[in-house]
Amino acid sequence: MINPATGTFSEASSAEVVNARHTTCANQRLAEVVSSLVRHLHDFAKEIHLSQGEWDLAIDFLTKTGQKCTTERQEFILLSDVLGFSMLVDAINNRRPEAATENTVFGPFHVDNAPKRQMGESICLDGKGETCLFEGQILDLAGQPIANATVDVWSDNADGYYDVQQPGIQPPGNNRGVFVTGAEGRYAFRGIKPVSYPIPDDGPVGQMLRHLGRHPYRPAHMHYLITAEGFQRLVTHTFVGGDEYLASDAVFGVKASLIAPFERLEGRDTLWRSPFNFILTPA
Amino acid sequence: MINPATGTFSEASSAEVVNARHTTCANQRLAEVVSSLVRHLHDFAKEIHLSQGEWDLAIDFLTKTGQKCTTERQEFILLSDVLGFSMLVDAINNRRPEAATENTVFGPFHVDNAPKRQMGESICLDGKGETCLFEGQILDLAGQPIANATVDVWSDNADGYYDVQQPGIQPPGNNRGVFVTGAEGRYAFRGIKPVSYPIPDDGPVGQMLRHLGRHPYRPAHMHYLITAEGFQRLVTHTFVGGDEYLASDAVFGVKASLIAPFERLEGRDTLWRSPFNFILTPA
Repeated sequence: MINPATGTFSEASSAEVVNARHTTCANQRLAEVVSSLVRHLHDFAKEIHLSQGEWDLAIDFLTKTGQKCTTERQEFILLSDVLGFSMLVDAINNRRPEAATENTVFGPFHVDNAPKRQMGESICLDGKGETCLFEGQILDLAGQPIANATVDVWSDNADGYYDVQQPGIQPPGNNRGVFVTGAEGRYAFRGIKPVSYPIPDDGPVGQMLRHLGRHPYRPAHMHYLITAEGFQRLVTHTFVGGDEYLASDAVFGVKASLIAPFERLEGRDTLWRSPFNFILTPA
Repeated sequence: MINPATGTFSEASSAEVVNARHTTCANQRLAEVVSSLVRHLHDFAKEIHLSQGEWDLAIDFLTKTGQKCTTERQEFILLSDVLGFSMLVDAINNRRPEAATENTVFGPFHVDNAPKRQMGESICLDGKGETCLFEGQILDLAGQPIANATVDVWSDNADGYYDVQQPGIQPPGNNRGVFVTGAEGRYAFRGIKPVSYPIPDDGPVGQMLRHLGRHPYRPAHMHYLITAEGFQRLVTHTFVGGDEYLASDAVFGVKASLIAPFERLEGRDTLWRSPFNFILTPA
């Protein structure tokens, strides 16, 4: 029998030997997280009999992933996203009653202090794309309207880029805005029918997706960050029903309950209408 | 029931939804490795209920680990080492009969084309440290000597640094050399009794070790890379018996069978003698 406390390593006892070092750690939560990670990573290597060459490739991949990161580009978040890990962490931390609107990934393109706008106003400043009226109510679990809810929305433009991806090309605040609901909990604004777009795929994560035979596209969606006193923060999207990537979102953000109708309005300035109610959970 | 093929995500089905994308991958081994990794990483997040804040810290840690890497410094290998992952991959890929000498980690300080030396010669060029005679035989599983075996050895100097860590301070080739066995399979060389030293701990991995309450030291050891035609390559160390870090090697390299005697010789120029036989496995 191997005694893990001696630190003597074997294939069979590997995780126990490593984790015996963490039993006296002052930060109990850190010890718990690292020890669980060690167990699962060691199980992974044993299950697939990871070769030395594959380990070399993994070290190289992780190094390049870190070195692709800048203040504007976060390749490790992208890696977490395409492995479904970001969505999983979001799901674990936002378990809700069935009637409540579900969360999805926050994404990297939200900005603090987006322009405050009046209900009904347009968020589209570059004149591109097909105009769409987004409207509905912010409700509680009993179906009662929530007044004074802040509805922060953002989407890409008709070329598939967020304003922050194209400084100097798009006007700042293009396709984003913050609205506050009145007594009936209603919101309404004009934007564009969003378009599908690829996540940045010129780095190691894009290369991995290509090796896996996966495309980098996200189905078209409008982002929502909805906050109201006494309720849980809701971070979600509505997805454009019928989008060709709904069943293959590169970051697994789609939930069936978040697919919204986009109704074509004939003979009007506004071409589309997308009605959607959001149901918040008590804090 | 959720159909993974639709790509619709839930906490319960997370890994299945992600891995449904890999079933048509042309590179089957890549799909197998990534799918296993996804299952184990998702299990990890669920088991410890990883919080959003902890995920943020992990993204930041991985990014800094990648950015600490240079051509001289490999922080991700260090991370793999301190999690016992490098030793596990080594163990998985070097399963041997019980009588054979065990592998341990290669480490980052080997150099190709180290000086070829005559049997009995000294590898210590800087005159520091306590002289030690290393000697023994290279044998096969039946105990027969292996002639023409190449014995490539390297260690730190008395200050705890390898020559390649101190260019311009240590003479090149200090405490390293390559020997070839004769008909009796014997090797013998003079070096120093190695000293324990810390792995580089001024980066994210060192910081992690401090948070975990772990020290960065490796117990004193002599490195061996032994090759002979018809036999498996042996990458190993001998450890200095009695070293204070034998039970707590920062990278888990110690195996009980690799702890060597270091006998003090009274009244001689050579102060120590460390006898050790290496037993190779057929290729």
